[in-house]
Amino acid sequence: MSEYSHLQKQRQNFQPKLPRILRDIKNLQAKPVEGEHTTNPEVAKLFPKTMGQPKLEFAVGSEQPHQVLRVGVVLSGGQAAGGHNVITGLFDAMKEIHPESRLFGFLNGPSGITDNDHIELTEDLLAVYRNQGGFDLIGAGRTKIETSEQFQQAVNTVKELQLDGLVIIGGDDSNTNAALLAEHFEENGVSTRVVGVPKTIDGDLKNEEIEISFGFDTATKTFSETIGSILRDSLSAKKYYFFIKLMGRSASHIALECALQTHPNLTLIGEEVAAEQQTLQELTNQVCDLICSRADEGKNYGAILIPEGIIEFIPEMKILIQELNRLKIDKALSKEEKITFAEQQLSSASKKCFDYIPKDIQAQLLLDRDPHGNVQVSKIETERLFIEAVKQELKKRKSSGTYVGKFSAQPLFCGYEGRSCYPSNFDAQYCYALGYVVTLLIDSGATGYMSCVQNLSGPVEDWHITGIPLASMIHMEERKGKMKPVIQKALVDLDGTPFRIFKEQREIWGKKDEYRYPGPIQFSGSPEITDVTTLTLEYEHQRFASKV
Amino acid sequence: MSEYSHLQKQRQNFQPKLPRILRDIKNLQAKPVEGEHTTNPEVAKLFPKTMGQPKLEFAVGSEQPHQVLRVGVVLSGGQAAGGHNVITGLFDAMKEIHPESRLFGFLNGPSGITDNDHIELTEDLLAVYRNQGGFDLIGAGRTKIETSEQFQQAVNTVKELQLDGLVIIGGDDSNTNAALLAEHFEENGVSTRVVGVPKTIDGDLKNEEIEISFGFDTATKTFSETIGSILRDSLSAKKYYFFIKLMGRSASHIALECALQTHPNLTLIGEEVAAEQQTLQELTNQVCDLICSRADEGKNYGAILIPEGIIEFIPEMKILIQELNRLKIDKALSKEEKITFAEQQLSSASKKCFDYIPKDIQAQLLLDRDPHGNVQVSKIETERLFIEAVKQELKKRKSSGTYVGKFSAQPLFCGYEGRSCYPSNFDAQYCYALGYVVTLLIDSGATGYMSCVQNLSGPVEDWHITGIPLASMIHMEERKGKMKPVIQKALVDLDGTPFRIFKEQREIWGKKDEYRYPGPIQFSGSPEITDVTTLTLEYEHQRFASKV
Repeated sequence: MSEYSHLQKQRQNFQPKLPRILRDIKNLQAKPVEGEHTTNPEVAKLFPKTMGQPKLEFAVGSEQPHQVLRVGVVLSGGQAAGGHNVITGLFDAMKEIHPESRLFGFLNGPSGITDNDHIELTEDLLAVYRNQGGFDLIGAGRTKIETSEQFQQAVNTVKELQLDGLVIIGGDDSNTNAALLAEHFEENGVSTRVVGVPKTIDGDLKNEEIEISFGFDTATKTFSETIGSILRDSLSAKKYYFFIKLMGRSASHIALECALQTHPNLTLIGEEVAAEQQTLQELTNQVCDLICSRADEGKNYGAILIPEGIIEFIPEMKILIQELNRLKIDKALSKEEKITFAEQQLSSASKKCFDYIPKDIQAQLLLDRDPHGNVQVSKIETERLFIEAVKQELKKRKSSGTYVGKFSAQPLFCGYEGRSCYPSNFDAQYCYALGYVVTLLIDSGATGYMSCVQNLSGPVEDWHITGIPLASMIHMEERKGKMKPVIQKALVDLDGTPFRIFKEQREIWGKKDEYRYPGPIQFSGSPEITDVTTLTLEYEHQRFASKV
Repeated sequence: MSEYSHLQKQRQNFQPKLPRILRDIKNLQAKPVEGEHTTNPEVAKLFPKTMGQPKLEFAVGSEQPHQVLRVGVVLSGGQAAGGHNVITGLFDAMKEIHPESRLFGFLNGPSGITDNDHIELTEDLLAVYRNQGGFDLIGAGRTKIETSEQFQQAVNTVKELQLDGLVIIGGDDSNTNAALLAEHFEENGVSTRVVGVPKTIDGDLKNEEIEISFGFDTATKTFSETIGSILRDSLSAKKYYFFIKLMGRSASHIALECALQTHPNLTLIGEEVAAEQQTLQELTNQVCDLICSRADEGKNYGAILIPEGIIEFIPEMKILIQELNRLKIDKALSKEEKITFAEQQLSSASKKCFDYIPKDIQAQLLLDRDPHGNVQVSKIETERLFIEAVKQELKKRKSSGTYVGKFSAQPLFCGYEGRSCYPSNFDAQYCYALGYVVTLLIDSGATGYMSCVQNLSGPVEDWHITGIPLASMIHMEERKGKMKPVIQKALVDLDGTPFRIFKEQREIWGKKDEYRYPGPIQFSGSPEITDVTTLTLEYEHQRFASKV
């Protein structure tokens, strides 16, 4: 039995296509792009050195002599497909710049930087990780570099390793961290350039410049494969409603993209729930209305998509959770006593909301606390919460004669498998190009930048490359009562084209079974099957196009 | 937005390869194969007409004039990938035999036969279902044709439609039903031939002649895709143990094949648990031993595969469930009172087993009953049962100092998505060939046969075709206290090559992280990636080869 599967070997040998401009990087020169900067003075105070840097583009110049590069790279936070390809792109470009360049990988996340726990990444080692899923080459972690001691440790490490560049592959928080590190290095005369790479399956790290974070394409394709099969199962057996929870807490981009890909009967979008100030009871009624109207047509099956983070978008639930977090509950009480105690202590609005929640989930809210005593929102099994709430409501409707169907539900969670799987060709190539751009930025002496590849709904050859100043993305936000510099998460734009198209179609999808089956990610064959990215990006680019 | 995804359209246009012998079916003639038949006299009594029929092979003869064929087809039981291709293969072969042949599909399972609820299947209608997943063309159902009234209704239907053939696509029960229908038709002078097709993702409908049931290949590939990604996630984040339950109740073929494909740290095989008479506590200890020894090496992550049917393989659990089924529990009692009541009534051995089960699952066992008041084994969340039992045991070990790690677990269920997804090229081609063979059997006048394609670990061109008498597969078995004719389910052979290879490797897989990542099913590209079937079948054929 081979250690590697056939596909594993084939993907190890896949050569990602490069954008045309990256085919001869030794001749490229960075060019600042002139433009207006509106700077928040609060943010500017935090970034005296790196605020106001220009966006960088690259153009062909004359071939310059290049120095040997020494670079360290870290993977921060949850996995996203393509992480290994950022590293191989970075490595291949560094070797092209100068064959004696050396790349070091910090182990198990940012703590690898502070502890200087690293390995050298060589051609042989990287060979088996090319185009592979997961972050297992060097691991990942969620430690934040926050204290001044940690900043000093980072300085020590990059000095010890004599790094020209430090690459932070991560989400909004990690890239904020990259910006702060870049600033700290500049202030302290450390010559190591810091460059960030936009990673998150959630798709909420995007803005005018960053079209998509890597991993979103693969995760939504993987989930859409499963959802499509589940829809087909539902339509074939005609006996289950599937309640499918989708990973991704802060925004509903994943749910929206999967809905556009598969046309399920109902999809909750957190941002809409928040905008419409919907309650848990209203959402339950919305689901039940769909189930009842389908039952009237003899259909007792279907599927409903629920973003993992929906709870925090429901205004009353947000308040309830805040109140529950403040409650001091005697651990010696029985489950029932705890519930009674909570009911006595909650505000009347929150009590009403709490009472609507099925008993098992009430208990989850009171029992499962994190080390700080807070409700663990990510552990609330939202798909089961809705199943129980819907069961209760349908029972009422049945006894009042407004519901005639049979309700049998199956919970399902699409999560971990979508973040560690093989990257799609899109993510494999996008990440490889991102790695190349990182090398260009470090080689140009740029610090406090994010590697950026654009025009991504077109063919790889035509992709643009650029460097975006990290500080320009940062604004101030309240986190746990304190104003903090952060990169703002991009929520689903309720006026945007992707949501508008979804909204136009969803009533039909609810009634009719216009399910669509994207199938498993394909790596070989016709490019419209193997290389096309998300419908979200395609529609967003339509919007840009129509603006022009 | 297109109604069809790109892959959906591509698969609609995929032309399955045919075995060489099926390329010109008009010249093929059925030849009985001489051989010994050992016949159980109890079974023979039930099949006076169809018992003792020979196995049929097909050889090229001179072209014969062929009659128009009228055939009805039904999908019985749970979905399995490839069902639509049996129908398109049947259709294409019927049209090749005679262009005026007509095919009818009975709707929503065997009740479509008794109610004569059917549609005609035409080229246009079939076009969009070619190589697609699900059973939604005509639906499926679990009604059994059992009573003499139902048998008479079936006779009426096939006479009304003037059917030459009735095709039953189903598992062991449905094919037993096909045998009984064939016998009934023969006894009553009904000329309609009945032919069965071996379908089940569970892989337990196989024997000396039937190498594999259709759907097993696709289901295990789909689950192995997910399991591989989960293993990679586990190895990357290094913080979770995944407890992965796999659909399939009666045998552990799926778990074994997925283990061979992905090399998880531990895989429970029901047949071994039964043979070793293992208890729930012993299995829990086995899992905990693994977790502890990995923790000693600093590894607090991994994955464990659990067959859905494991509960029924644990001898003490089987007895406990029987005892619980006999208990009359007052519905007015509270959950706690019910548990206390059950504990008082159970035998001391069953009480010990019950007490070992975590509280939440105890409640599930007492509360969730089917309409006959029986425990619903398929609803027991075995993956959560093990997580809770392991937590309890690790707590003890921690306080006694024998466990030093951190345990954080994630439950996962691989199920519905593996039965309704796009069929792999293997299942698409296997099913298409099975459909062709059905047509040949009906055209030859054979009744009470199963369509059979062999030599499946070789290239499609070299596949053999044959017809196996259904009655020859039947034996008597006790079902709910009565002796019934059934096709025996094939359990995992603990002396077979697939299990032996698994057994040789599993200790290493437990300790080291030799995870293997099969990735998503591929339809285009190198044949070793797109067309190869299961390792189980490959190893079984190695055994046959070594016997020769």
